[in-house]
Amino acid sequence: MALVASVRVPARVLLRAGARLPGAALGRTERAAGGGDGARRFGSQRVLVEPDAGAGVAVMKFKNPPVNSLSLEFLTELVISLEKLENDKSFRGVILTSGACPAGGCLVALTCDYRILADNPRYCIGLNETQLGIIAPFWLKDTLENTIGHRAAERALQLGLLFPPAEALQVGIVDQVVPEEQVQSTALSAIAQWMAIPDHARQLTKAMMRKATASRLVTQRDADVQNFVSFISKDSIQKSLQMYLERLKEEKG
Amino acid sequence: MALVASVRVPARVLLRAGARLPGAALGRTERAAGGGDGARRFGSQRVLVEPDAGAGVAVMKFKNPPVNSLSLEFLTELVISLEKLENDKSFRGVILTSGACPAGGCLVALTCDYRILADNPRYCIGLNETQLGIIAPFWLKDTLENTIGHRAAERALQLGLLFPPAEALQVGIVDQVVPEEQVQSTALSAIAQWMAIPDHARQLTKAMMRKATASRLVTQRDADVQNFVSFISKDSIQKSLQMYLERLKEEKG
Amino acid sequence: MALVASVRVPARVLLRAGARLPGAALGRTERAAGGGDGARRFGSQRVLVEPDAGAGVAVMKFKNPPVNSLSLEFLTELVISLEKLENDKSFRGVILTSGACPAGGCLVALTCDYRILADNPRYCIGLNETQLGIIAPFWLKDTLENTIGHRAAERALQLGLLFPPAEALQVGIVDQVVPEEQVQSTALSAIAQWMAIPDHARQLTKAMMRKATASRLVTQRDADVQNFVSFISKDSIQKSLQMYLERLKEEKG
Repeated sequence: MALVASVRVPARVLLRAGARLPGAALGRTERAAGGGDGARRFGSQRVLVEPDAGAGVAVMKFKNPPVNSLSLEFLTELVISLEKLENDKSFRGVILTSGACPAGGCLVALTCDYRILADNPRYCIGLNETQLGIIAPFWLKDTLENTIGHRAAERALQLGLLFPPAEALQVGIVDQVVPEEQVQSTALSAIAQWMAIPDHARQLTKAMMRKATASRLVTQRDADVQNFVSFISKDSIQKSLQMYLERLKEEKG
Repeated sequence: MALVASVRVPARVLLRAGARLPGAALGRTERAAGGGDGARRFGSQRVLVEPDAGAGVAVMKFKNPPVNSLSLEFLTELVISLEKLENDKSFRGVILTSGACPAGGCLVALTCDYRILADNPRYCIGLNETQLGIIAPFWLKDTLENTIGHRAAERALQLGLLFPPAEALQVGIVDQVVPEEQVQSTALSAIAQWMAIPDHARQLTKAMMRKATASRLVTQRDADVQNFVSFISKDSIQKSLQMYLERLKEEKG
Repeated sequence: MALVASVRVPARVLLRAGARLPGAALGRTERAAGGGDGARRFGSQRVLVEPDAGAGVAVMKFKNPPVNSLSLEFLTELVISLEKLENDKSFRGVILTSGACPAGGCLVALTCDYRILADNPRYCIGLNETQLGIIAPFWLKDTLENTIGHRAAERALQLGLLFPPAEALQVGIVDQVVPEEQVQSTALSAIAQWMAIPDHARQLTKAMMRKATASRLVTQRDADVQNFVSFISKDSIQKSLQMYLERLKEEKG
């Protein structure tokens, strides 16, 4: 999954409208980013950043095995890396790459400007919360609905659908499906299209499109956190999650 | 038309968000539901219910000839039957079946979770109010817009379009079109997919998706009823309806 | 571009909900409208109206070379011509025809009921504001979003996309693409479909669909005008516009 994105991540204020960097999400890209002139790798244990200052683009790789879980440590490192890029005027775009894209990973993808998925049935994208017996929060629902429309979002969220590549493209949750080895080059082409637009115009337009959704999250953030904590702490929900995890183990075992 | 639905019907509070039963709407199915073990048929003159308690699903058949008009008697019987099912813990889903699906019939379909239409040009679905010289109420407009999007809804509502099967599928007002004899089996397969999801998670997700539309209806219900009664009582509108009915008779005659 | 439309234009109150005339937008039609019985041509320097009172339809042609720019003079003449038609009970529909459809021209098309584009790569439609370093105002964003959905609108607006015919049809910004010589006859067929519906029902339905967008514009109109004037007067924006115009000249030169 490769993302063209200009977002701060959920740990802070999801979908910070009008953030500066455009971004594109690519499918799984395990191989190195190619480096290039002026590349000064940086990053942390879980987030590796390969900047190409000449092109004004950085490629960010998630390294949080086995499934790039969005742990507090991971999200903190991601936010720090994004802030570094945002504060460095030589970067105008960022490409995020990861593996699987369920739930929170799907959210990171949805907040980006463009989504590219590797054409491999092993990779899928979606919000599978209901399959775990939990509920996607309203701001995740809003973000999905903005991307694929109300009806498709209702069905996907109720059934907790994870879309394999062809279906993901058809429903519109990703913009392109390409062979795995072309994911990164496709993302670089895509991001060039976004970077051809004057930053201020693109940024204000993006803020206008996402303002309603972002404001709603910011306004209701505390209530939503309390609500989620109280829900997730229930014995019945914990039991439901445990059953799901055990089923996962059995499927793999 | 077969519906996978978990709704209370318009006579009460249309789209009661978060109702318990999932439902699927099937195309015309005149043949018997197959009964099965544990089936205890019940129902009334106009609504026949064939429960399959083993599967946790009931099939509801509308019998209000010639066109399953949504008369007060019919709606009352429908609501009573749905409440019976909702209060019986052995049922988790209901399949509604009918014939034609214009106007109110289309609404019943739209409130369901999944819609299956028989591939027969005799059957169509849509909101043809303007063809009769009347206006779909705002909550019907909202529900259609949630399903097929703003632009398609605007065109369909202004022109009073009734979609035959292929067009219905293309515009997204139904989810599947299948040969007439496969409608019920397809509905049973579809509803199994919804019933695989933990009830509480699916139900809360559905309520979240439909809350805005349902709340708007509930809040403005009395004003809407008064508005409609005053509109429909006008001489010019009564005349327009009469002309439509006469044209219908001529076409059949 | 041929439009089936019932709108007053942006110079006054964009999207005056519930205006009387339905309209269809056709692709470029340079040849004469055919006249017909009862045709009494009228119009002005920049807007030519060829009424066909028998059919109840008028064809409006834009003549503001080289690109039908929406100058104050042009918009004034357009509004006067539309008002004449609206006040004449013998007309129930209007077909607008023009050439290129970027920015404001696209808006005129979007406010119509149906859009037909000539199948010629020279013609395209879209909102290319960001390419000029400026921002589409919120009411133009709302109108585009109503037509093609949130995700497609976000991408189109950020990138300032101008869609050639095939892409325009695919994204839904036009309803039909036909050979250039069939544009006007197609518009006449389309408008007949709209005129078959009782005026009052169609008009109230249209008002219901567009009310939220139109009200938002009307309420925030003065603030929006001030906002735009202050934005467009900035040195940096003027410089950005100048660069764009120079690039255009170079491309043509």
